[in-house]
Amino acid sequence: MTPRRPIIGVIGSGQCAGPIHKIALEVGQEIARRDAVLVCGGLGGVMEAAAEGAAREGGLTVGILPGPSIHHANPYIRIPIATDMGHARNVIIAHTADALVAVAGGSGTLSEIGHALKIGKPVIGLRTIPNLERVQYMNTAQEAVACAFEILGVSA
Amino acid sequence: MTPRRPIIGVIGSGQCAGPIHKIALEVGQEIARRDAVLVCGGLGGVMEAAAEGAAREGGLTVGILPGPSIHHANPYIRIPIATDMGHARNVIIAHTADALVAVAGGSGTLSEIGHALKIGKPVIGLRTIPNLERVQYMNTAQEAVACAFEILGVSA
Amino acid sequence: MTPRRPIIGVIGSGQCAGPIHKIALEVGQEIARRDAVLVCGGLGGVMEAAAEGAAREGGLTVGILPGPSIHHANPYIRIPIATDMGHARNVIIAHTADALVAVAGGSGTLSEIGHALKIGKPVIGLRTIPNLERVQYMNTAQEAVACAFEILGVSA
Amino acid sequence: MTPRRPIIGVIGSGQCAGPIHKIALEVGQEIARRDAVLVCGGLGGVMEAAAEGAAREGGLTVGILPGPSIHHANPYIRIPIATDMGHARNVIIAHTADALVAVAGGSGTLSEIGHALKIGKPVIGLRTIPNLERVQYMNTAQEAVACAFEILGVSA
Repeated sequence: MTPRRPIIGVIGSGQCAGPIHKIALEVGQEIARRDAVLVCGGLGGVMEAAAEGAAREGGLTVGILPGPSIHHANPYIRIPIATDMGHARNVIIAHTADALVAVAGGSGTLSEIGHALKIGKPVIGLRTIPNLERVQYMNTAQEAVACAFEILGVSA
Repeated sequence: MTPRRPIIGVIGSGQCAGPIHKIALEVGQEIARRDAVLVCGGLGGVMEAAAEGAAREGGLTVGILPGPSIHHANPYIRIPIATDMGHARNVIIAHTADALVAVAGGSGTLSEIGHALKIGKPVIGLRTIPNLERVQYMNTAQEAVACAFEILGVSA
Repeated sequence: MTPRRPIIGVIGSGQCAGPIHKIALEVGQEIARRDAVLVCGGLGGVMEAAAEGAAREGGLTVGILPGPSIHHANPYIRIPIATDMGHARNVIIAHTADALVAVAGGSGTLSEIGHALKIGKPVIGLRTIPNLERVQYMNTAQEAVACAFEILGVSA
Repeated sequence: MTPRRPIIGVIGSGQCAGPIHKIALEVGQEIARRDAVLVCGGLGGVMEAAAEGAAREGGLTVGILPGPSIHHANPYIRIPIATDMGHARNVIIAHTADALVAVAGGSGTLSEIGHALKIGKPVIGLRTIPNLERVQYMNTAQEAVACAFEILGVSA
């Protein structure tokens, strides 16, 4: 058995543009370059940008979808998981990831951050809801992913 | 058919003492006095205090439990629902309640508030995580429950 | 505290007619006459007929709904629970009920019976999928509900 | 984008021995040889044997776990998904797989077969619960996986 690869969750809103899209893409790239698995919600916006970034680097991408069909995953998801459990799928992302990076986002992301913190998963924030206790805020995709790996004790 | 009674969710941490216990108890009492159904997570702390308050006034209490057994509900729950879905049961509380009152609480409550806001449910905050957008903060149990009913357009 | 009332689950298909409707209605009536809580999937067919039967006898009815809105419960449900978890809500019914009565039904009911048996809940069958191990088959609504109570050790 | 690989679910009980272990292992091998993704419940018995078979052939294995931790996956799972949703995770397997192979199994497998049939997924049976409508029963691992691919319209 080879050792299990780290799993990094990327969370954020289902729509994004311009600078947020760019940051999410870079987060995905960084994750794949470090040979980690990217897990996200499998839909658009930050989820799609991050998956695209990871795919560009040949990374493995998992999408935990809210609906009943794997056919609604964004095109950069290699392993779609269809839950048909709506927002409850966010809990699955939190349990599955070793650490999470939150990029921008609104109340859905707030709920996801809450879940992750509740179960003791590290959360790195990038341009996301400010001033949350125990969230580690970073300024760039590189810093955010490096921070996640540092917390997990994995060297690049 | 008689018209459906409003359903008010009460969320907050699984442990509480002193003034928070008292406030949660009063929230439950107010909900029952207005003949609404109280829905909560069915365990201890704020959930139990609120259910006790409602029970004192003869109210109907529903506990959406994280575990597989209805026998772990607090003694003031009349209708225990055993989900065996862990924190995902918070999503069910948010979908089921017409409005939610958050009393104190930490990251679990943060996640619950996020869910509720994400799906458009009104959230009233009482000594809970501060400065969240779209949460209506109140100072007393009476004000909080009155606010919930006002938003729902139900007169006392 | 008064002792908790037994909770009887009624499962079966979302559409039913004629004799099956009548049997499901009678099952609901018997459950309510024995002062038990009826829990079901909250939609039409067997679920609605059973809830109607219970409501006629003044019983308490709980509907664990697959969708995100309590407004899709049938009109005989007094406590609607909105899960937004699709078929996974069947697992919640199995965990919540002390015993289940399966009336007619197809593959959804088969899955529900499987869940209930898996977690050790008694299942009484009425005109449902035949020849399943550990399902107790009965011929009338009265016999089925009496059998459930007998297994639970509750006298009428 | 390369076309998405088929996803084949393997279901069966959490304990198995002798001939059932051998068949489950062969099912996993066949799935990997055809370059499909194997999805299962991630624990022991049939799930582990099938994952081991797929891993021997270099296949990609996904385990949808009932508990909150990815660390309880069997050692042949490359992508562990931690749901913390108990048996409700079976619904996720049914939604995610394009077709399912049931190997032996008891009431948990019965429930999983019920889910899959309910949502229209093909189910191939190997030494599993007999006489279920719409389950296609086969005698060998090779036949079972070949049947799944034939139904999906994918040539080997």
